[in-house]
Amino acid sequence: MRRIGIGLIGTGFMGRSHAMAWHAAATFSGDIQPVLVSVADIDGAAAERTARQFGFQRWTQEWQQLIDDPEVEVISITSPNRFHAEQALAAIAAGKHVHCEKPLAPDASLAARMTAAAEQAGVQTQVGFNYVKNPLLKLARQMIADGELGEISGFRGIHAEDFMTSPQLPWSWRLDPAGGAGAVADLGSHILGMARFLLGPIEALFADLDTVVKQRPEAAGSSVMKAVEVDDIARLTVRFARGCRGQIEANWVATGHKMQLGFEITGSKGSLIFNQERFNELQFYRSGDQEQQNGFRTLVAGPEHPPYGLFCPAPGHQIGFNDLKTIEMLEFLQAIRTGERSGPDFREALEIQKLVDAALVSSREQRWVTL
Amino acid sequence: MRRIGIGLIGTGFMGRSHAMAWHAAATFSGDIQPVLVSVADIDGAAAERTARQFGFQRWTQEWQQLIDDPEVEVISITSPNRFHAEQALAAIAAGKHVHCEKPLAPDASLAARMTAAAEQAGVQTQVGFNYVKNPLLKLARQMIADGELGEISGFRGIHAEDFMTSPQLPWSWRLDPAGGAGAVADLGSHILGMARFLLGPIEALFADLDTVVKQRPEAAGSSVMKAVEVDDIARLTVRFARGCRGQIEANWVATGHKMQLGFEITGSKGSLIFNQERFNELQFYRSGDQEQQNGFRTLVAGPEHPPYGLFCPAPGHQIGFNDLKTIEMLEFLQAIRTGERSGPDFREALEIQKLVDAALVSSREQRWVTL
Amino acid sequence: MRRIGIGLIGTGFMGRSHAMAWHAAATFSGDIQPVLVSVADIDGAAAERTARQFGFQRWTQEWQQLIDDPEVEVISITSPNRFHAEQALAAIAAGKHVHCEKPLAPDASLAARMTAAAEQAGVQTQVGFNYVKNPLLKLARQMIADGELGEISGFRGIHAEDFMTSPQLPWSWRLDPAGGAGAVADLGSHILGMARFLLGPIEALFADLDTVVKQRPEAAGSSVMKAVEVDDIARLTVRFARGCRGQIEANWVATGHKMQLGFEITGSKGSLIFNQERFNELQFYRSGDQEQQNGFRTLVAGPEHPPYGLFCPAPGHQIGFNDLKTIEMLEFLQAIRTGERSGPDFREALEIQKLVDAALVSSREQRWVTL
Amino acid sequence: MRRIGIGLIGTGFMGRSHAMAWHAAATFSGDIQPVLVSVADIDGAAAERTARQFGFQRWTQEWQQLIDDPEVEVISITSPNRFHAEQALAAIAAGKHVHCEKPLAPDASLAARMTAAAEQAGVQTQVGFNYVKNPLLKLARQMIADGELGEISGFRGIHAEDFMTSPQLPWSWRLDPAGGAGAVADLGSHILGMARFLLGPIEALFADLDTVVKQRPEAAGSSVMKAVEVDDIARLTVRFARGCRGQIEANWVATGHKMQLGFEITGSKGSLIFNQERFNELQFYRSGDQEQQNGFRTLVAGPEHPPYGLFCPAPGHQIGFNDLKTIEMLEFLQAIRTGERSGPDFREALEIQKLVDAALVSSREQRWVTL
Repeated sequence: MRRIGIGLIGTGFMGRSHAMAWHAAATFSGDIQPVLVSVADIDGAAAERTARQFGFQRWTQEWQQLIDDPEVEVISITSPNRFHAEQALAAIAAGKHVHCEKPLAPDASLAARMTAAAEQAGVQTQVGFNYVKNPLLKLARQMIADGELGEISGFRGIHAEDFMTSPQLPWSWRLDPAGGAGAVADLGSHILGMARFLLGPIEALFADLDTVVKQRPEAAGSSVMKAVEVDDIARLTVRFARGCRGQIEANWVATGHKMQLGFEITGSKGSLIFNQERFNELQFYRSGDQEQQNGFRTLVAGPEHPPYGLFCPAPGHQIGFNDLKTIEMLEFLQAIRTGERSGPDFREALEIQKLVDAALVSSREQRWVTL
Repeated sequence: MRRIGIGLIGTGFMGRSHAMAWHAAATFSGDIQPVLVSVADIDGAAAERTARQFGFQRWTQEWQQLIDDPEVEVISITSPNRFHAEQALAAIAAGKHVHCEKPLAPDASLAARMTAAAEQAGVQTQVGFNYVKNPLLKLARQMIADGELGEISGFRGIHAEDFMTSPQLPWSWRLDPAGGAGAVADLGSHILGMARFLLGPIEALFADLDTVVKQRPEAAGSSVMKAVEVDDIARLTVRFARGCRGQIEANWVATGHKMQLGFEITGSKGSLIFNQERFNELQFYRSGDQEQQNGFRTLVAGPEHPPYGLFCPAPGHQIGFNDLKTIEMLEFLQAIRTGERSGPDFREALEIQKLVDAALVSSREQRWVTL
Repeated sequence: MRRIGIGLIGTGFMGRSHAMAWHAAATFSGDIQPVLVSVADIDGAAAERTARQFGFQRWTQEWQQLIDDPEVEVISITSPNRFHAEQALAAIAAGKHVHCEKPLAPDASLAARMTAAAEQAGVQTQVGFNYVKNPLLKLARQMIADGELGEISGFRGIHAEDFMTSPQLPWSWRLDPAGGAGAVADLGSHILGMARFLLGPIEALFADLDTVVKQRPEAAGSSVMKAVEVDDIARLTVRFARGCRGQIEANWVATGHKMQLGFEITGSKGSLIFNQERFNELQFYRSGDQEQQNGFRTLVAGPEHPPYGLFCPAPGHQIGFNDLKTIEMLEFLQAIRTGERSGPDFREALEIQKLVDAALVSSREQRWVTL
Repeated sequence: MRRIGIGLIGTGFMGRSHAMAWHAAATFSGDIQPVLVSVADIDGAAAERTARQFGFQRWTQEWQQLIDDPEVEVISITSPNRFHAEQALAAIAAGKHVHCEKPLAPDASLAARMTAAAEQAGVQTQVGFNYVKNPLLKLARQMIADGELGEISGFRGIHAEDFMTSPQLPWSWRLDPAGGAGAVADLGSHILGMARFLLGPIEALFADLDTVVKQRPEAAGSSVMKAVEVDDIARLTVRFARGCRGQIEANWVATGHKMQLGFEITGSKGSLIFNQERFNELQFYRSGDQEQQNGFRTLVAGPEHPPYGLFCPAPGHQIGFNDLKTIEMLEFLQAIRTGERSGPDFREALEIQKLVDAALVSSREQRWVTL
């Protein structure tokens, strides 16, 4: 069994999520065993605490030090978005495999540079589009690939949450156009990635980006208002290379919705409906069953949907968000072991970023943009 | 085509419902055509208004007059419960077919007398257990009869509403023990009837009746309290003659529930779930389908579920409560034409009443009661 | 009480639906009482049968004769689409009020001519967009108008069914471009009308129309194929005059969906979700309730949602599709009585038709079209 | 910070679950830090593998050795049920805190002995009724305790799965009456525990136990049949000490149901509905809200429902089954730290076992049994 050293940069929301996932992944040892070597955070106390909690052997305030650590083979990047590129490129330069949280970069040109660097260096990469790690989405993808839905006729996707709804919420880095787009980048990337995961490349899109809250307090409680330049809602019409088309919405002012990441896919022989709010379920309709007794059936996740069985040997018990993240880490380890691409890597994230960039162009120029 | 004269007694909630149903039934003429002849109500203005609205040819304040009317062949009884027996017996004595709203009688002995009278007179009867007229319940019954669920292992039924929840609601005829039981008669009879409709006779039961609101104002706004003697909630354990068993609840203080009339039936090869709150849907699970893609499927009512097609030639449009009542009238007309029993008639209502009576005995004596 | 004579043209799917609705409407007499005078169908036997079933006083094979009938004040048009304009114009010319099934006309210019004629003649008109007659949609509209959702931020609408999915389904009048568009006209008009009903005028749209089944047998069983020129799926991005935007899909090849006519509306203070498949329910989220105990609530239709109470005095019993149609007729009668516009009339249908026409232009020219 | 050594007995389904939970619990260090010291399994290879996977410092084939280990302060028992008592008593005798998987014992007398021993020894105990660790059930319990539902009027609970449905499934330890009851012990204990968690003690019950599959193959593939003596379905009517009553079903032949562990609770001012199949949701109805806009609301788990926030700082992401188990371990650690009872301990398991025993008596003697 090969042991592989993990270094984690960042200890915030996603840093903690990565730490939990690596820590859990270490228990599913197959041919490759992750070892939590080091954690870096500019806040030393946070780094130290994370190291102690999750069993990292050491910690540092200097992320470069972590990259240089000879026992670290994998760099997990969860720092603020604006550091992603610099850290990833440094890690690649040091020959390390890189798991980077989304977004990979604020635009496709930088993402392309990162992808090229990784591919030239021959390192494995992964980007945190965790939702597609869902066992039931693997089933969906397989069913589509196997033709069980027939010829796909349409896709209707959404990722809507409500965390930016309040106009009192102050301006923040999320709204900085230097960091890229708004909801279409933050949430849209998930549903675009899911669309690609299930149906393959999108070759053209038309977008309408809308800024609902036009200005926000410069800071919490401030009466000075700052204009918002990025989108709160993005509405896309898309054409897939395989021939079918669809609509996609990304929305972070969707009052009442906490995690409405879902889709409906229709095909000539069947249909699927999914919603992340109930991600241990998948709805499936198959044509041709006796009409009188037919209808959408609700599949419930169980061991017959790998890798659900890693977490529980009985159906209906349900896996949680952190389990999706663990699957992500496990599959990344397999990619490192086998040398084959797995899951959304830098190239995939680049393709998603191209769609986000295209949405900005399309909306500004009010025209279809071909990828 | 044979024309058959209808006489309606009562113009309240159910009187209006019957009038609508007969009026609608008249448009689905097959071999037998209902003619709205006369309506009786002690309140002459109400009778006159109902006659005008629904096209009854005449009206009267004397129900005996309506029964004596030679053009009236069918008596529809929707008067207050305490008049049901007298009117039904008079109608039967006059050789008329009788549709009587539930409850047929406050207890089984009177119901038995009415049933015997009807059977001796050779007239057709019907009692208003309208919910079983649902096209999807006909399908459920057929599936069970055809063995599609295999051997039935269990029944779990409920009829819960919340219209009696408020303790401020004054004492009323519903609470008069002279009129029979409480929730177990008013609502329980529906779910007991549904259980029998689907699974056949119940041969034994154990009941626990509970009075939740112990006393109520004598009249609206009154500060004089009157003890409540009938049940607000009835909980039954039942054994069907076919061998399976189940639990049943009747509850009219079920806060938030408006029409929770439903069941779950499990069998060795499949299961069904139904809730009147979504009565154009039926959930069905069939064992043996490929496990990975199996789950409860939601059937949606359509023309492939007769007699849905009478109301709409396309699926998914949905029939409403009044359509169930119309089906009831249509099937009663067919029974009159063919001379064969149909739907819940007096004998069926008697069997249901026996169960209600048995529940009272069982709860009082805290023992199983065999029917 | 004023009596008003009804004349019905057509006895097919919608003809029967109108007959049922007028027949039922006659029982809800307020200040105006419909009288079923005459029915016309080129198939005399069908006309005769419909007359007998629903109580029309006479029938004819000549629709002009029905229009000329002095006792007929309202013409209900349910003939094949291509006759709508001619018959409606003739009725208007005769000074009759007109209820015309959708589509009013194959394009906006003809619809405009019909609207102008009706308005000049001062007759009342109505077009069969029955779904908005739902008591819960009246509530939704009122809540939006009252600001209970705050400022509306988005609309996501769909009308998807699957009746055209099979490629074996032969070419038919539905696919004749002379009759107008495909799914966007047939189904899209419903969701566009619903969007307007709730949120007001749409001032611009971008459309992408897709023909999924490219050719169909010329006739049932034929091996000669005929190209399909109209859309199977239409995807619209829309901008409402009130400021918010949205996406809309119309789709008649949506495998497994029987009546997916629904929407999600988000506002700064609340959200609504609706699906015609469960049209006695409406989901509502209100911001500001104690966060820990908040969530989308499922409203169940009841008498507190007029005019539900016309059909049943108790909640949870459910109204059906035909009841929606009855409400439509009742409201049309009120419009005739009061002289005020009600429901979707010719002018409203014209506005909807303009949107359908704009979708064709937009999709062909791949640009936003301003209304 | 205090470190506390964990020893795990057993490495099967629940052994693995405990290992995962302890391993995860170690990352949520508060004032007390679990250290995975040793794991015991009669199968040495399994013990060794588990030790390596989860980072136990050592392993053994002798569970007594683990109990004697001075660094082990907590014993986690997940061995086959028949060993629970012996091992727990030995651990208590050694002054160790004990977490024991359910069932604690095959009957209440043994459970009472274990409870007495633990209480005399002053050690903390816990039994694996993990489902009540759900953040939303903590909310439910608090709401009930705070009177938000008013006076509770009824409970309707179920725990149904289908893993024993097939008659081909051979006889096994689950069916050995020496191990206690059937479904009422295996599944019923969960819903009985949940009922107690929410509503307090049950003071009387009436039970009807049913054996659906009367005989099973002696072993897989064998044609020799062995009679089944334990219940497949248990149906209970219960009376709570607080005054309300209810019905409960336990069922392991419920075709199609994978984890139907749920309840409906009604009170004078509100109601709750829960189903473990969607355990990140809770449905809540509150009386008194504006009737027209009221309905059951679906709460979605989030950080405002502690301890959800331990796992994810954003709502809607969902925790999984293993997270419930982690909460269980964390709370047990807190109990050890504070010396206060927490969660279902031996005494609570004893009370649940008394109910199971009472069900056997009640069903056999067909009478109410008072606890």
